[in-house]
Amino acid sequence: MIIHLNPNVSESKAHDHAKSTESAIFHDGQRFVLVTPSKLKELPASLASDTEAHWPMDSDIQLASKSYRSETRTIKLGDVSIGGSSNNTMVAAGPCSVESEEQIRQSASLMTELGIKGLRGGCYKPRTSPYSFQGLGLEGLKLLSKMREENGFVIVSEVRDATHVDDVIEHADVIQIGAKSMYDHGILKACAKTKKPILIKRGFGTTLQEFVQAAEFVLSGGNPNVMLCERGIRTFETKTRFTLDLCGVAWLKEHTNLPIILDPSHALGYRYGIEDLSNACVAMGIDGLLVEVHPDPSVAKSDAAQQLYHDQFRDLLKAIKPVAQAVGRTIV
Amino acid sequence: MIIHLNPNVSESKAHDHAKSTESAIFHDGQRFVLVTPSKLKELPASLASDTEAHWPMDSDIQLASKSYRSETRTIKLGDVSIGGSSNNTMVAAGPCSVESEEQIRQSASLMTELGIKGLRGGCYKPRTSPYSFQGLGLEGLKLLSKMREENGFVIVSEVRDATHVDDVIEHADVIQIGAKSMYDHGILKACAKTKKPILIKRGFGTTLQEFVQAAEFVLSGGNPNVMLCERGIRTFETKTRFTLDLCGVAWLKEHTNLPIILDPSHALGYRYGIEDLSNACVAMGIDGLLVEVHPDPSVAKSDAAQQLYHDQFRDLLKAIKPVAQAVGRTIV
Amino acid sequence: MIIHLNPNVSESKAHDHAKSTESAIFHDGQRFVLVTPSKLKELPASLASDTEAHWPMDSDIQLASKSYRSETRTIKLGDVSIGGSSNNTMVAAGPCSVESEEQIRQSASLMTELGIKGLRGGCYKPRTSPYSFQGLGLEGLKLLSKMREENGFVIVSEVRDATHVDDVIEHADVIQIGAKSMYDHGILKACAKTKKPILIKRGFGTTLQEFVQAAEFVLSGGNPNVMLCERGIRTFETKTRFTLDLCGVAWLKEHTNLPIILDPSHALGYRYGIEDLSNACVAMGIDGLLVEVHPDPSVAKSDAAQQLYHDQFRDLLKAIKPVAQAVGRTIV
Amino acid sequence: MIIHLNPNVSESKAHDHAKSTESAIFHDGQRFVLVTPSKLKELPASLASDTEAHWPMDSDIQLASKSYRSETRTIKLGDVSIGGSSNNTMVAAGPCSVESEEQIRQSASLMTELGIKGLRGGCYKPRTSPYSFQGLGLEGLKLLSKMREENGFVIVSEVRDATHVDDVIEHADVIQIGAKSMYDHGILKACAKTKKPILIKRGFGTTLQEFVQAAEFVLSGGNPNVMLCERGIRTFETKTRFTLDLCGVAWLKEHTNLPIILDPSHALGYRYGIEDLSNACVAMGIDGLLVEVHPDPSVAKSDAAQQLYHDQFRDLLKAIKPVAQAVGRTIV
Repeated sequence: MIIHLNPNVSESKAHDHAKSTESAIFHDGQRFVLVTPSKLKELPASLASDTEAHWPMDSDIQLASKSYRSETRTIKLGDVSIGGSSNNTMVAAGPCSVESEEQIRQSASLMTELGIKGLRGGCYKPRTSPYSFQGLGLEGLKLLSKMREENGFVIVSEVRDATHVDDVIEHADVIQIGAKSMYDHGILKACAKTKKPILIKRGFGTTLQEFVQAAEFVLSGGNPNVMLCERGIRTFETKTRFTLDLCGVAWLKEHTNLPIILDPSHALGYRYGIEDLSNACVAMGIDGLLVEVHPDPSVAKSDAAQQLYHDQFRDLLKAIKPVAQAVGRTIV
Repeated sequence: MIIHLNPNVSESKAHDHAKSTESAIFHDGQRFVLVTPSKLKELPASLASDTEAHWPMDSDIQLASKSYRSETRTIKLGDVSIGGSSNNTMVAAGPCSVESEEQIRQSASLMTELGIKGLRGGCYKPRTSPYSFQGLGLEGLKLLSKMREENGFVIVSEVRDATHVDDVIEHADVIQIGAKSMYDHGILKACAKTKKPILIKRGFGTTLQEFVQAAEFVLSGGNPNVMLCERGIRTFETKTRFTLDLCGVAWLKEHTNLPIILDPSHALGYRYGIEDLSNACVAMGIDGLLVEVHPDPSVAKSDAAQQLYHDQFRDLLKAIKPVAQAVGRTIV
Repeated sequence: MIIHLNPNVSESKAHDHAKSTESAIFHDGQRFVLVTPSKLKELPASLASDTEAHWPMDSDIQLASKSYRSETRTIKLGDVSIGGSSNNTMVAAGPCSVESEEQIRQSASLMTELGIKGLRGGCYKPRTSPYSFQGLGLEGLKLLSKMREENGFVIVSEVRDATHVDDVIEHADVIQIGAKSMYDHGILKACAKTKKPILIKRGFGTTLQEFVQAAEFVLSGGNPNVMLCERGIRTFETKTRFTLDLCGVAWLKEHTNLPIILDPSHALGYRYGIEDLSNACVAMGIDGLLVEVHPDPSVAKSDAAQQLYHDQFRDLLKAIKPVAQAVGRTIV
Repeated sequence: MIIHLNPNVSESKAHDHAKSTESAIFHDGQRFVLVTPSKLKELPASLASDTEAHWPMDSDIQLASKSYRSETRTIKLGDVSIGGSSNNTMVAAGPCSVESEEQIRQSASLMTELGIKGLRGGCYKPRTSPYSFQGLGLEGLKLLSKMREENGFVIVSEVRDATHVDDVIEHADVIQIGAKSMYDHGILKACAKTKKPILIKRGFGTTLQEFVQAAEFVLSGGNPNVMLCERGIRTFETKTRFTLDLCGVAWLKEHTNLPIILDPSHALGYRYGIEDLSNACVAMGIDGLLVEVHPDPSVAKSDAAQQLYHDQFRDLLKAIKPVAQAVGRTIV
């Protein structure tokens, strides 16, 4: 159950109520909000006089639920907004990994040329093998910051584990929690303490229920700015790297109030179909699109097969704009 | 290996060659075509003088492969064509099951109103439970035939097992092989002997390789008119009925020459997201779309939750047309 | 709901009751049995006076349910029985495909040497590629019959589609319905009309619910002799051919009254672990074990990698006997 | 490629060689060992004179591979060993979560009564919902330490994220890395720096290749004491919580040199089949078995359905001992 306490309830009293109901508690700018385990179906009498409104919930999808807030949350990314009534679909693109200043500068130039605001690049790569390139770490984050200072980008970068989450929070504008890290309480708790937008990628073995519950960790810690990113689940099919779950996206749109971002590059794992899939993603009426693009994919240190050449990305952008328009959306 | 024999090679000689190479053999209208097991990589010397052209192949995806024919096959459906250079996306809609003359007549009226050529309806339902409605059988096929006579539809209906395949071939214009039947040699062989278009649905546990190999059974038996239908695969996610595999569609478009049809209704299993998913499907640049629609889904005898109301289908059609246009396609 | 009519209810009256309740009907040797759709929870008043006993059921798993019969069904295979209170675990072994009289005779000799009663061999191979060996067909069935006449085996052979089901029913002692055919109504209905034991293999994409419901098609058609065979499901893991689902076996043992047979050969797809897996299967306390063994796997026409050499099978048999004993079972 | 440098090669020279080959490096007690990316197939000339032995490898499964060490590694757990030539199968049991001193003391008594050396209990629960019990944390670890001091147990406890890994390393004897944390570089790196045994649980969406590669992170950091734990993967089947992958276990036994532990409780998710599954696990010839048992499962704060009652665990132990004996193993 979500409980809005009256705005005049004191902090200490609010915490007493939280304790008595075993609730998460945060202040949403207007009042203290309690989130009890979802099995609680009736408002306890002891809270009645201090309660402004309450919502009994079916499952532990609570703050993220359409039953609580029927409109998609608005999230400000630099000088544009997504969600809410914006009808914006934001594109963030860039290389899988930041590899060098020269490389990321080329990516930055491309985004500037095309009027793309979102620049993405990984600095802490969650590799499955210890014998692969592990990313530039803090040095990479600083290169991304430099690009932002020079060009005004919204920087999207991923945190891999709790040991460096504070560095990513400091340097990036959107904190991406990777598919392999999304159950990590250390990361989720750190992300709950900032107000920066958090982009949670769905684990490839993660149910929709668990996916949204990961968002609940951040939301119930007091950060309302959470986006969900579908990037492909693992199935029996091996001709493609993963299986992009657009049925899942339909479910998320129907049942949650969180903006939805799609990542076709990781899902397919190959360049050839990224344009078609991006068209499909945009046609779903989503809030954002991540695309991997590299100045020279043939020498990329990670995910070489799925990163687009610059010209392919230019074509992709030309393709998705009329599709966005056909479904009442604008690419920003 | 695919081998085109010279047009003047006699039938008996062609069959001798087929026997010596353990090949499938058929006549494609111009010459005998042999398809050997794909492990054969060099043309046998004994065939050299009788061979017009040959294609060594990587796997048992042979006749369906883009390496053999780089353009998507053209398939004539009534007075329109899909595939080839047509840029047409054909819609076929109707109820999950034909339940009565009154019901199917209402569906037919809706399609006529909206200018939709394809009317679909199941007569032999491949139910997993013996205690569910199993379909009207031949009586249903006759009702569909009646609708065609009155309205000029392209009738799409499904065969469930080999015991009634000839009835479906006689009455339907497009023979649909269901997801649960697509490994059935009895059905595949019967479909190879007609020239009517065959629509093979991907089994929910079927790899893309196996899916296309099912088409090879029909193609190598001499029927060139095969379409592939993705309708959702079974994954760990249970909030939706199945998971529509658009990454797989990207792979099929890249590697095969068969027209691709999508069925979002069976994939999602719920009405709410069918319009968004249909937009996504059409944005992939596909050749056809199947949609389940019922005069009154609340009383439908099968798949009640996923069939659209007539008004929802009218809205869907309005939505997909501009999306089709945005990707250079026309809804027919 | 399962309804036992009174033994003295006439056939025509029984059929009237079946019609009024939309039930499957058969005679179990003592009385007519009706099986209604499971949504019926209360016995209709019109049947009350003709009813001996009735069982409301949770789902369309009805005749196979432990709620209906708490003991595993006894099935007679030649001169031994499995299930019931027998504590027997029957081994049936042999090649994937019957390839020649010489080959199957070598298999038969091995079984005779080792005192194994069950001889298995495929004659109609459900291949996914049309360019692979498709089996000897009726000729293979006749070779198996010959081996039975000479040696007294219980012959297990698989039906692939409805076009030859009657041949298999005529020649085999146990009719195996393959993983790719288990939804085939044509086959299931034919198997319901015989009393020969039916062994249904679980489809690799089939849920336990659907698996048992396939058995219901046979049981509710009047053949009580159904066994379930788990042979591996398709998952994301590709190092092994399939994933043997022993958690599923635990569920089947807990919830159904059907004997359970396991097939580790198809699950793993490689020789190396078949002995360990057979030990595990037998330790589950199951009713039967299928093992693929070939006189010379290196030249086998199908599934070469998973068939054991004769010496490996001798070792396997030595290994499983003490394991069977440790769990109170006897290998027959 | 794994490279054993000559024992007399100096530390600085060894590190120069590691740098020039982009290798992981550690000292195994006798010499420096380099592990290069597996794509290196020939020993670089510059290392030839300093190299004692080298093993080119097929994939990034290197130190864990049977090609490197053909015998399973021996791991000392308190005063017993598993792996190597021991033929021991160690049981570790206890509650899902440590809930109170009284509760864990009851578990400790049961283990003492039955002569079980391994006591397991979670203190940092990796819950998918923020509104569920999250574990006692450090307080729980101290309770486990107390039980060890009083009874001489081998304590097995799980780390959830990198923020508390050092506490678990300090208090537990076996550091369990959970299924949701096994990609966590922060944890893996910390575990590489200790010599305590590490038990890595396979993620439910993790391939065998990735699973063993997680072990490579620890092994190549210098900790040779790694065990692999299969605990069920996520498949389409939902009647059981997960699907225990014994085919995968067969593969791991064939291809890796790491001891294998099985956890049937998490796989099945229900009490009813744990004894049968434990029999199956032990019959595979594994090195260890984890079982969840609770003094009163009906009030357990997590995983209530799958924890055994004390009497059920006594029965289980009686059942698995003869099975272990049948396959030449001893339960310790």
